[in-house]
Amino acid sequence: MSAAARSDDARAAVTGDALDRLIALVAKDLEAVNATIVARMDSSVPMIPALAGHLIQSGGKRLRPILTLAAAGLNGYNGSDHIRLATAVEFIHTATLLHDDVVDDSDMRRGKPAARMIWGNPASVLVGDFLYSRAFQLMVETGSVDILGVLANASAVIAEGEVMQLQASKNLETSEETYLRVIEAKTAALFAAAAEVGAMAAKAAPAKVKALADYGRAVGVAFQLVDDALDYSAASTTLGKNAGDDFREGKITLPIILAHARGAGDERAFWKRVLGEGQQRDEDFAAAVDLLSLREAIEDTLERARSYVKAAKDALAVFDDGPHKQALLALAEFCVERAY
Amino acid sequence: MSAAARSDDARAAVTGDALDRLIALVAKDLEAVNATIVARMDSSVPMIPALAGHLIQSGGKRLRPILTLAAAGLNGYNGSDHIRLATAVEFIHTATLLHDDVVDDSDMRRGKPAARMIWGNPASVLVGDFLYSRAFQLMVETGSVDILGVLANASAVIAEGEVMQLQASKNLETSEETYLRVIEAKTAALFAAAAEVGAMAAKAAPAKVKALADYGRAVGVAFQLVDDALDYSAASTTLGKNAGDDFREGKITLPIILAHARGAGDERAFWKRVLGEGQQRDEDFAAAVDLLSLREAIEDTLERARSYVKAAKDALAVFDDGPHKQALLALAEFCVERAY
Repeated sequence: MSAAARSDDARAAVTGDALDRLIALVAKDLEAVNATIVARMDSSVPMIPALAGHLIQSGGKRLRPILTLAAAGLNGYNGSDHIRLATAVEFIHTATLLHDDVVDDSDMRRGKPAARMIWGNPASVLVGDFLYSRAFQLMVETGSVDILGVLANASAVIAEGEVMQLQASKNLETSEETYLRVIEAKTAALFAAAAEVGAMAAKAAPAKVKALADYGRAVGVAFQLVDDALDYSAASTTLGKNAGDDFREGKITLPIILAHARGAGDERAFWKRVLGEGQQRDEDFAAAVDLLSLREAIEDTLERARSYVKAAKDALAVFDDGPHKQALLALAEFCVERAY
Repeated sequence: MSAAARSDDARAAVTGDALDRLIALVAKDLEAVNATIVARMDSSVPMIPALAGHLIQSGGKRLRPILTLAAAGLNGYNGSDHIRLATAVEFIHTATLLHDDVVDDSDMRRGKPAARMIWGNPASVLVGDFLYSRAFQLMVETGSVDILGVLANASAVIAEGEVMQLQASKNLETSEETYLRVIEAKTAALFAAAAEVGAMAAKAAPAKVKALADYGRAVGVAFQLVDDALDYSAASTTLGKNAGDDFREGKITLPIILAHARGAGDERAFWKRVLGEGQQRDEDFAAAVDLLSLREAIEDTLERARSYVKAAKDALAVFDDGPHKQALLALAEFCVERAY
């Protein structure tokens, strides 16, 4: 039984509402971010905005910039640096996606052909570099070296996480601990920094800045755990993802680590053939989904995600109740609920 | 006749001396830079220092960090930020080389197999990203947003230049003006920023900061013009370069633009076949070298380089004479003299 088959309409409705409420709260700011994205990805070299725009304007959820905007709002900020920082965060994220698609030989992204399929790998690498640089230019405009430090550190950690993931690829001996280190680095570090710099722009007290960093990090881990579960779920098509991408690329994610560790000899031989050696036949993906179900690997991956959601919500205890806090609590829930 | 065949021992001696004098002046600082490079390319992910070290410790000339150190020295700086900045500049340079080799499918770099031939394209892309981030972390440590701005701008311009070059590839209609825009962006912008931030670290007066930026930019253009000439010269092997790389990759550099513009119909047909269409036979590179000689394309490329060297030297007029100024004047000369 796939995760999608366990879908729960009532919960899905809550989910949509929650995200909608958050988006409504930051709607005006998000409009400003979208305008800044368009203005700042521009260049006298026409291929740059064409390629960057293909990805960045293809219906991404803007979760990371929303975190920056909401963190600033939660701390009563009313300047404009949070717009620049949210844009910088989205540029860093987009740069990593462009490079990831080259690294993973991906054909599709967000239900459309990956940029590299249209403009080629070289242009995707270089436009990614351009967006990284633009992100740092935007941060420079805020005049805060401390904020620059947080995002420069996050960028370095992301790159380290991606290299770790590359090395763990096809390695079925990857431990759950290593997997968690990888996703904390490649995904959660930017979620944490996104929320942290929003609070920093608002000059929030150190305890509040730290609370938002902790919140962002936990949300990021939950988000990636769910993403990795969704890769083996029929529900993923409705989210613009390609089910089976991780499988085809030999990525060793938590569902696989759990199913492999709990599996009998013939199951381990299966995982070794299809992921360790990359010998895949047409029917193998369906067989993999069945084994993950047999070993309750998706369920347990989602359970771990739920524990991170709880940690994320607990981190916000330092803040008084209010619409921004409610919306951030709901966003944390959304990260897991989208799996159902 | 190749550029190397015009070699002049007397000039070569001056050249070696000049660079040696500059290196002697900044020797202690350069040692500190090399130590910082080793310390800062480190990571808990072992593939990162292995891959980065392969390239960064393979006998590069460290021209760009030397510019930063010399510019700081010329302005009487005696702090330690110039070490961090020189390291950051070298990291940015190394990141662009790692990405360039992926973009160009290059097999060799500095006389050794390119990193991508050993660790693969994905790791080269990601370690390049890591070094970019490390560069920004080093800049953050200087606490100067203005310096961060200069290097963030340079990074964006470099990426734009690389994309421009990609688009100009194989296009024989590329104008000399477009070519100059490409090399100003992909090469000269970092030379300019390297010298500029050295002066900024020393809190030099704006006119002196600008003078060093102008000097660096002109040296960078001269350096790239000579590099592009050397690609068609037998002398290049002694410099650890592969003669013919640009030719094989279909790069439209100034020697080609000049020879194509001055060529008769059959010559243009030749350039169209070998570069425009990439239909190359074994004997074509030798034929290309002959045509470049016939049309005095290498000579004139080097003449243009010499005019940039003059501009670079003129830019230093604002400084009093002294060992640092003499060494920087000599460095400018070296950029062209290495062609002989």
